[in-house]
Amino acid sequence: MIRQKIFLFGDSITEESFSDGGWGASLADLLRRKADLVLRGYSGYNTRWALKVVERVFPAAKEDGGESPAAVTVFFGANDACLPERCSGFQHVPLHEYKQNLRSIVSFLKNRWPQTAIILITPPPIHEEARLRYPYIENTTGLPERTNEVAGLYAKACVEVAKECQILVIDLWSKMQQIPNWQTECLWDGLHLSRLGNKVLFEEVANKLNEEGIGAEELAVDLPLIEAVDPKDPLKAFHEF
Amino acid sequence: MIRQKIFLFGDSITEESFSDGGWGASLADLLRRKADLVLRGYSGYNTRWALKVVERVFPAAKEDGGESPAAVTVFFGANDACLPERCSGFQHVPLHEYKQNLRSIVSFLKNRWPQTAIILITPPPIHEEARLRYPYIENTTGLPERTNEVAGLYAKACVEVAKECQILVIDLWSKMQQIPNWQTECLWDGLHLSRLGNKVLFEEVANKLNEEGIGAEELAVDLPLIEAVDPKDPLKAFHEF
Repeated sequence: MIRQKIFLFGDSITEESFSDGGWGASLADLLRRKADLVLRGYSGYNTRWALKVVERVFPAAKEDGGESPAAVTVFFGANDACLPERCSGFQHVPLHEYKQNLRSIVSFLKNRWPQTAIILITPPPIHEEARLRYPYIENTTGLPERTNEVAGLYAKACVEVAKECQILVIDLWSKMQQIPNWQTECLWDGLHLSRLGNKVLFEEVANKLNEEGIGAEELAVDLPLIEAVDPKDPLKAFHEF
Repeated sequence: MIRQKIFLFGDSITEESFSDGGWGASLADLLRRKADLVLRGYSGYNTRWALKVVERVFPAAKEDGGESPAAVTVFFGANDACLPERCSGFQHVPLHEYKQNLRSIVSFLKNRWPQTAIILITPPPIHEEARLRYPYIENTTGLPERTNEVAGLYAKACVEVAKECQILVIDLWSKMQQIPNWQTECLWDGLHLSRLGNKVLFEEVANKLNEEGIGAEELAVDLPLIEAVDPKDPLKAFHEF
């Protein structure tokens, strides 16, 4: 295996992570020559649906083995936290089931790849006013489909599951709210990440990868860097290939 | 296989293609849920070195077969076109050998994956003044290590090889020079792509993928889109998984 793989598994905030300034593209750029970022974001999905498809998203290792990814980010909860009686209620998953689903996803990944670092990411905070201004489906109730308070309960539950499973977690809900005017600085529609929001998440994930010894400094470089090529005898660097 | 793979094979202009506004990241975003973009850029490499490593960059298909990528972009020549007697002369590859190396790379890919679309990309034009202002290594000669005229010869050679091999080609050298003030609009250091330069190349590659029937409209979507989930019975969409 030339390069390690890092999977990004989640909802729309993962699916959109290779758009301009996105946290996924930034990770791919940071780890160029070192790791392949594999995008597995599914817009609108909650943990219930994620659990239904997880075996298909992460096919069984080939017989030749050895293909464990270095890391998987698991980033769900923003849709689970839709309020049940409001316009996006069909995406809602009760808090207790959310925790159980997260445990099941983690358990599936640990079972498949015991050496892989699993990083849970909590849902981001919610700017309710903006959620009314940018509806995803018709909303004539005047009430937002998500609230920051409820998103916080799901974030707390996600942190608890990570502790219980002894895996890494990024508490994005808390982290973002430390930034002045996070409502408009970190989010553009009250839920999805702005350029700054993407930067915050990118840095958090990069830090966690460093903590696990799979950061930009630690991963092996694929093929000789130009700096390692001797101008007087360039081909020497390539003799072994 | 859930998603098709598209490899981006080339030098620094490929390696940097997931940086902010980069053409590679833009392709990954365009084809999200549909294809995996695999970054195989090697800064400073010419076709001579690329040919030395090509078997390692594209490992033999697994026994289970069927893993042919949908497409591979092959984007070399900017380093081959360094002038032999100037400060980056060790990267120079003579025009005749450049053509032969490109043919060998194409032949290797065609042999490995007969069904895969191969897209050659010519080197970009060169803004010589900027090349003096942004030296990559010490240059006390007052002469740029690359010229636009010579880059044009390599671009022409690349187009010829593509025709000969009956594969697709993007003549970036010609395309960019149609843009007013391309020297500063499309390039930032006289060689590497600006935001606009990245956009130009992204659109060219997206168009070629469309021509081959592997564009954003044609590729299958991985797992049900949220629009296909019935709010009254969401799990129905996931019954088969």
